[in-house]
Order: sequence, then C-alpha cells, then structure tokens
Amino acid sequence: MPKIRSIVSAITLVGSISVASAWEALPTTAPAPANNPTTAEKVELGRILYHDPRLSSTGTVSCASCHNTMLGGEDNRPNSMGVHGQTGGRSAPTVWNSAFNKVQFWDGRAASLEEQAAGPVTNPIEMGMKSWDDVVVRLKSIEGYQAYFDKAFGENSISKDNATKAIAAYERTLITPNSAYDKYAKGDKKALTAQQIRGLKSVAKLGCTTCHSGPAFNGGGSFQKFPVINNAFLEKKYQFANDKGLFEVTAKSGDEHFFKVPTLRNIALTAPYFHNGSVETLEKAVKVMAKVQLDKKLSVEETADIVAFLNALTGEFPKQTMPTLPATNGTSFN
Amino acid sequence: MPKIRSIVSAITLVGSISVASAWEALPTTAPAPANNPTTAEKVELGRILYHDPRLSSTGTVSCASCHNTMLGGEDNRPNSMGVHGQTGGRSAPTVWNSAFNKVQFWDGRAASLEEQAAGPVTNPIEMGMKSWDDVVVRLKSIEGYQAYFDKAFGENSISKDNATKAIAAYERTLITPNSAYDKYAKGDKKALTAQQIRGLKSVAKLGCTTCHSGPAFNGGGSFQKFPVINNAFLEKKYQFANDKGLFEVTAKSGDEHFFKVPTLRNIALTAPYFHNGSVETLEKAVKVMAKVQLDKKLSVEETADIVAFLNALTGEFPKQTMPTLPATNGTSFN
Repeated sequence: MPKIRSIVSAITLVGSISVASAWEALPTTAPAPANNPTTAEKVELGRILYHDPRLSSTGTVSCASCHNTMLGGEDNRPNSMGVHGQTGGRSAPTVWNSAFNKVQFWDGRAASLEEQAAGPVTNPIEMGMKSWDDVVVRLKSIEGYQAYFDKAFGENSISKDNATKAIAAYERTLITPNSAYDKYAKGDKKALTAQQIRGLKSVAKLGCTTCHSGPAFNGGGSFQKFPVINNAFLEKKYQFANDKGLFEVTAKSGDEHFFKVPTLRNIALTAPYFHNGSVETLEKAVKVMAKVQLDKKLSVEETADIVAFLNALTGEFPKQTMPTLPATNGTSFN
Repeated sequence: MPKIRSIVSAITLVGSISVASAWEALPTTAPAPANNPTTAEKVELGRILYHDPRLSSTGTVSCASCHNTMLGGEDNRPNSMGVHGQTGGRSAPTVWNSAFNKVQFWDGRAASLEEQAAGPVTNPIEMGMKSWDDVVVRLKSIEGYQAYFDKAFGENSISKDNATKAIAAYERTLITPNSAYDKYAKGDKKALTAQQIRGLKSVAKLGCTTCHSGPAFNGGGSFQKFPVINNAFLEKKYQFANDKGLFEVTAKSGDEHFFKVPTLRNIALTAPYFHNGSVETLEKAVKVMAKVQLDKKLSVEETADIVAFLNALTGEFPKQTMPTLPATNGTSFN
C-alpha cells in the first residue's frame, strides 16, 4: 500500500532557523508485520473484540474503556480504572496512531501491537481475566464469534494468538490524518495560523523534535530518559521518578526512568499528561517538558505558541460503525 | 409518523386455542411526548451524550456502560457496576425498545425516558455526579457541546432539561424490528419454526401474555406483583422478595413487590434475569416465572418450546455510527 508522505526540509519551513528535523505528514496506512497482514475480515473481528467488555472478569471493561476511540483514544484520566474500580500508576496512552510506535506500553515492553493487546486482558487491575485460556473458553462459548474467526483466520481458529492479531489489525486502521499540520506539511501554507507557525518554529529550535521526531512526533517509538534534569520543585509536585520505566521490566542499570517517546499527535485530546498522568493541562505539560528535558524556562507567549501548534496536530477521526457484539445467548458470565 | 402495525387475532394464529391477546409486530417508530418531538439534531446530540463517560464523576461510566447498545442494550450482569466498582441491587433493563414502556426503571418511578435519563447520572453508585448543576458546568466547559445543543435546542441551551431530552430522543430510535416473530405476525408463516410456534401457543395458553402483552410484550409498561405465589424453595434460592419494588418509592401498603412488566423483546440477549438478576439462564427464568406467577410446572419440552419462541423475539439492530465525542481540550476532569 502506498504511503502518502510529504517530506519538506525543516529549513524550508522554519525559514532562517536551521534544524535537523524534517516535517512529514502522517501516513494514511500503517505497516503490518509479515505474520499478520491486515485484512478487512481481521479488522472487523478486531473491532468487535476491542469493544467487547466480556473480555474482562466483570464484563465491564473492554479495550475501548481505557483506549476510547470516541474520545482521544484514551480515557482523559490520570490513571485508568479497571475492574472493581481499581487504578494503576500509569496513564493510558492513546490508541490512535499507535501503529506508528515501534514499541508499545509506556515502558516499551511490548514489541508489537499484537503483544500489547494480550497484556491488559489478564492484568488483575485492568481487565482481570485469570488467563487467556479462560478468555478463549469464553469466546468459544459465544456462538457468533466462531463465524468471525472463521472468516478472518480459517476454521477452528479461536485462540489468544488470533484474537490479539485481530485486535492489532483493527488498531492499525486507527489513523488520524489531515490535521492542520499535515496540510501545512503537504504545502498548504494557510493551514496553520501565524501563532501555530511560531509554535512550530519554537518546537524545532528548542529541541523538542530531537525526541518527538518523525511523522508521528514519537521518534518512531524510541526510548528516552525522563526526566533528564531533576528539578526538586517539579519532582515534589509531580513525582515523576517513582516510576522507573524500562528498568521496572529489565532491572538493568542504565534503564532507570527510560520511557517510550509518546506521540504528540492529538495531544490536545489526551490530558492529563505524562506517564503518571500527573500534569493537568497541556500548557503545564509544555512548560514542564521544556524545564526537565531542555532546561529552558519558556515565556508565556512561547508556551501559548507551542500549545497552539500542538492543537494543529489534532487529526481527522475516521467514521466508525458501532459493532454489534455476538450475543451471549440466554446466559451470562457474571 | 405512521406506525406499522400488523394486528392479527390470536385465534387466527394459534388455531384452536382461543385467547384474548392479539399478536402485533413491533412499530418501527416510537411516540414522543408533545414537549419533546424527535428531531435528527436531538438524536445526534443524544447519541453523543449517551456514550460520554465524562457524565460520570470518574469519567469511566456512560449510559452505554450499563445499557450497552452493542450488546442487548444492557450489560449481561446480575447488577450493574457503577463508579469505583460499586454495584446496586437491580439488573440493568435493556434500552432497546424502552420507548415502548409507559414507565421506566424496574419500579416504574420515572414517567418518561426524559425523567429516567436524569436519574443514574447523580446516583452515587451509578455515575456518581454530585448534581446536575455540576454536569451542566462540565458540558459547558467542553467546547464542542455548545454547537450540538445550539442545533438541537437553540442558543445557550445547555441544561439538564435539554440534555435529558436529547438522550430520550436518541433512545426513541433504539428499536429492533423484523424479528422472526414480527415476520410471522405480519403473515410470513415460515418465519417461525414448528417448535417456536408451539412455544407461541404455550405462551398464550399458559397466560404469560396476560402481563407480557402488546407488541413489546410488556403490557405497555403496566405494573404487576412479583412473585404472586411465594415458593419457599425458589425464594430461598433467588431472594426475589428482598426488593419491594414500587413500595420502595411510594411506601404505600399494597405496592409491595410491584414491578414494571419488562419487555420480552431481545430477552435471549439480556441474561441474567429478573429485577435482581438472580436467575442465570433463560430456561430457568421461564420455569421460575411459570411457577411463581402461574403456579404451573412446565415440562422439559414445554420449556424448550417457550425458550425457542423467546429467541424469535430477537430483532434487527439498526447500524449506528460511533459518535466522536467533543474534546476536553488540553485538560481533563479527573
């Protein structure tokens, strides 16, 4: 599938400011792994599974509960709320454009969307299923699922592997192109306001795009240390360091506080901010990042310009049909 | 709006069994109150509000969480789960075809869908908002809502009254016509299987349709005492009597254990059963009702026939577009 990319050198766009980054529009299709090519049948099944709360122990939490595609692809909460009202320590990342992350989860512990999709279902404070074996038993007992799996993967194909492949295939369709920024990057110079263009220039000049690079402004999913500059005042207020990021998974010295670089796409829709959801507003998030990553104190005007630019990264959300979930006929799991 | 009704006398359909009930297909449009005529703009706004979890204190529970239109219009749980994982004592009734109930809630305490819609939002164990004033403040702070309210109700129209009117207008579109039964009632004699026709005859002969009458099999929303015949064994098992129904609202002697007659439409999709969700399967529900309301012990075959007939009441679910909720721009409520 052809990727629509319009790569314009930063020098052209930001005028006299010479920076290394290139301004690229968001591709309208996402790459799929060789073992899970995207098909319409997988996407259809994936959309159903993604919205099915019966994949949780209580029957109340679906993938969409915390990664709500009707909102900005997440839940607008500091930390998500799973089964029995439990909360963890991290803020749900947006599912929109997650296909453009090289790794998934805040700590990047999943190498693919397929691997990510398996996690929350059996996490005791998220969807709370005891095991994927139990999930497969449920799916097999819901009469209508067999036909969807048959179409997507062939006969007798209800399995953890295929369920997560279908969910990942659906997620690869969740792309939000045609933001004001994309139109600008493709050559429409009127697509951004003067303030947004000042913000774009600041983002490049300050160095934000060193990490938040590429069409999804996520460095392709690279890891970065956060925060680099420990600021006692901000640390006390937001307690960023409690979560050791990649180190929590690897326990390797040197991995402390490394996190996946999150996308800036649709960031105006995904408050509150950072891995622990501790920063309430986009304005504060911009100021905090400038301070702890770049050791810069932004002026009120610079902050407003950058926030205006970040608002230009809100894309167009594809219309989706609400799936009718296969029925739990005459019985229930709870 | 014209109502499509096909009224065929029971005598014609059930042959030699003479009963009082008439077999009617489900209307494809629902009546609206004089002060809230259904318009496309209200329905659009209502669909958005219905799916917006920011109408709950935690930002996790929308109307759709417990009355899920992707499922059978409810949550397939004994009792619904509201904010912070709290549960009450009643099972969520289906929203599908609720426009055909004369009163709403299990105890019928709401005279309209408009009145019903206001309730759960400020119920501490359901959506947990402190007051509708707080809800209105939230709605006013979400920039995109104003335009939807403007279109539906005119300028400066964000209010409890209009929000609940919009939700009710949307709910009036949630109708599931063209079940196998409807096709049969309209004259297609092959639409029901021989077993389903036996079930239909039993339902009339046993007296089920004395209460579950009319096109929605809900007596138009009348009240009935439940259970009429106190069976010590079943009462111990299912504890129906703990909930006093209408009496809990009126405290009037004589109202004890009176409940709204629930619709039988799509009942195969709404397990578990009864006001307290205590009966796990449709088969058990049929047997229990025959015993406690009609003092009849059904045979295995009779039960299977009735269950087959009830499955013929599963209608066609209209395709819905998933709404994009207006953004909480750069900030959040939690």
